[in-house]
Amino acid sequence: MPSEDARNEGQPGCGSSDRIRMKLTLAYVGTHYHGWQIQARPEGNLLTVQGLLEQAVSHVAGVPVHVHGAGRTDAGVHAEGQVAHMDIPATRAGVDWQLALNTLLPHDIRVVRAELAPEGFHAQFGAKRKRYVYRLWLSLRYTPPRLYPFVWSCGPVDVDRMLEAARHLEGRKDFSSLKNSGTDLLSSVRTVYAVRCLATDAHGRCEGERELAWAFEADGFLKQMVRNSMGLLVAVGRGKLAPDDIPAILEARDRRRAGPTAPAQGLTLDSIDYVLSSDQ
Amino acid sequence: MPSEDARNEGQPGCGSSDRIRMKLTLAYVGTHYHGWQIQARPEGNLLTVQGLLEQAVSHVAGVPVHVHGAGRTDAGVHAEGQVAHMDIPATRAGVDWQLALNTLLPHDIRVVRAELAPEGFHAQFGAKRKRYVYRLWLSLRYTPPRLYPFVWSCGPVDVDRMLEAARHLEGRKDFSSLKNSGTDLLSSVRTVYAVRCLATDAHGRCEGERELAWAFEADGFLKQMVRNSMGLLVAVGRGKLAPDDIPAILEARDRRRAGPTAPAQGLTLDSIDYVLSSDQ
Repeated sequence: MPSEDARNEGQPGCGSSDRIRMKLTLAYVGTHYHGWQIQARPEGNLLTVQGLLEQAVSHVAGVPVHVHGAGRTDAGVHAEGQVAHMDIPATRAGVDWQLALNTLLPHDIRVVRAELAPEGFHAQFGAKRKRYVYRLWLSLRYTPPRLYPFVWSCGPVDVDRMLEAARHLEGRKDFSSLKNSGTDLLSSVRTVYAVRCLATDAHGRCEGERELAWAFEADGFLKQMVRNSMGLLVAVGRGKLAPDDIPAILEARDRRRAGPTAPAQGLTLDSIDYVLSSDQ
Repeated sequence: MPSEDARNEGQPGCGSSDRIRMKLTLAYVGTHYHGWQIQARPEGNLLTVQGLLEQAVSHVAGVPVHVHGAGRTDAGVHAEGQVAHMDIPATRAGVDWQLALNTLLPHDIRVVRAELAPEGFHAQFGAKRKRYVYRLWLSLRYTPPRLYPFVWSCGPVDVDRMLEAARHLEGRKDFSSLKNSGTDLLSSVRTVYAVRCLATDAHGRCEGERELAWAFEADGFLKQMVRNSMGLLVAVGRGKLAPDDIPAILEARDRRRAGPTAPAQGLTLDSIDYVLSSDQ
């Protein structure tokens, strides 16, 4: 077992020139985690995906290794295609990292792919397009137990109104009204390529007319921008806002205008594209 | 809220003539339960679906009510369409039972439907056909976190061999070789209508070539018969048995001949049909 070799060799720390960069593609169910990012606490660190991953990677590497994610996901948010990079000792290049890490990680976090990163690869700064999927459940009678951790049971909505509103969320513009505070970004301008209602999600999965999945694609998202966009669309779908209200809400650049944030549990980070992704 | 009314009225117990029978259709994720059936222990009852359901029903009814299931499901087995009946005080006929019970039950147990039972309805003795679905995951590299609680990650199998073997499991015959001990049934003869490999499951859900769902339909199943049938088919799919070995294994009427039982977590009770089910 590769991880066993790694444990026993007792590799000393090495300089960056002795390290090679790897790209990890990750899937996780976020229900039981305090999000992606490591959160240190005096009484002990909170349970996070990055934290468990760094533990496992460092264990296999034999030295401390930092895992750098493409972006944070909030507590309760899921991923099918989160991406991260890590610089491992060159002597560990032969390890089957996917199997080694999946042996150590809990079952709700999986390495879908582990590969040598292309030259100059950076999980965060190299990301060119991100795709999120948000799932709604439209019946208030019951939510199927299997779907419960992955949907917002928002009740009935008018899909046509939401589709009309979604058009206003596409394009290159300032999305301050959909950004929660807590990040110090210089610019709130993003390009949203698409806000689409999926007949089925990426895996062909929608339960008839009672499940509704939405895909959000952009060159990047501000803090909680997808959840705030979904909250806005559901407000329109419920008749609390009109589709034509959206432009003014965006132009106001005021978070208080755009209504409540959709719950974390309905959100999944679906995939991330990089330049030259077809070559990777 | 109907359940609130029920709590406050303090309905006294009433004779069977004052009761009316209701049919419940239930979905649950079995992961956290010790199966369907109530299991009394001196140190306290184990957590079971029937136990929680009877608690909730009795609470809404204001009197103790027994919930009678169509059949037991093992610890860890899931359901999309388990059926049960219960005799509630006639004075409670106006309650919205689905909403009342779903308010009280945990999210991994849901009442999909609650309705007045047809004349003479009995969840167990009236069941004419049961359908189970068993899901396999065929890659050993990783199991998607979302699917993990619902599949057996058995690794690669030869589907054509399994399909050939499955033909021998269909028809009316003695299935003693696929019955675990622990039940005192008079006969081990059952009619298996179909053992089918699903390109997709009942909800159109299979993840490409790495997920494989099997449907088992019969007039009834012996104890762990579906899990034992699946274990047998996987043994064939792995090349440990030949498809043509199946008839002799069945004719032996000896549980030890048929190989290991497939894990509970891959199994879902999909649906149950009753006589006149189209009228219900």
